Amino acid sequence: MLEIRTLSTLARFSSEQMAKVNLFASPRLFCDLNCLRPGQEQSPHRHDDSDKIYVVLTGDAVATIGDEQASLAAGQAVLASPGVRHGIANRSDADTVVLVFMTPKPGRQPEQP
Amino acid sequence: MLEIRTLSTLARFSSEQMAKVNLFASPRLFCDLNCLRPGQEQSPHRHDDSDKIYVVLTGDAVATIGDEQASLAAGQAVLASPGVRHGIANRSDADTVVLVFMTPKPGRQPEQP
Repeated sequence: MLEIRTLSTLARFSSEQMAKVNLFASPRLFCDLNCLRPGQEQSPHRHDDSDKIYVVLTGDAVATIGDEQASLAAGQAVLASPGVRHGIANRSDADTVVLVFMTPKPGRQPEQP
Repeated sequence: MLEIRTLSTLARFSSEQMAKVNLFASPRLFCDLNCLRPGQEQSPHRHDDSDKIYVVLTGDAVATIGDEQASLAAGQAVLASPGVRHGIANRSDADTVVLVFMTPKPGRQPEQP
């Protein structure tokens, strides 16, 4: 029942694209690591009904929230509300790991561009 | 719309009890910092309908999940599912900051002991 997740050892990177590592999931939420090599990104998209929180754990991420962009360092967090376009990009020279919390878990419908 | 939360500068401690600092809230979730001086704790309790995730950011926390306990270092996380007793305690000599996600946001009914 008590399952510890050690974030630094679970982080995984792909040379192809941003890697997602699931930490926790329930019918109500998911909690992932988004792992980005330099130059990788998750293109801005939106979820009509869900909140998403990004917390940068290591490295630096450029977050897009609506029409705004900001560079987040480790230890900084932002919220994307339902219907608001959001994405993250690693424009630095170092690997970046972002903790992502999303609720409700999106359904089977495709994400909106 | 893009509001950055810098976790290290938002952490606040109280000599009286564990301090809670809200980072984000919506009708669906809250995301807080739980800030514990040595010896402080959040006593085990449960929420019948909500998931809670603890992520230790700095320091060390003893997490109770159901009948189990484990010591979590910075960068470790656990999930408490609905109906499962959970709490955290700082049994170390250093200040401890824990990131907490909870969804759905609990209603007005009192927490169950």
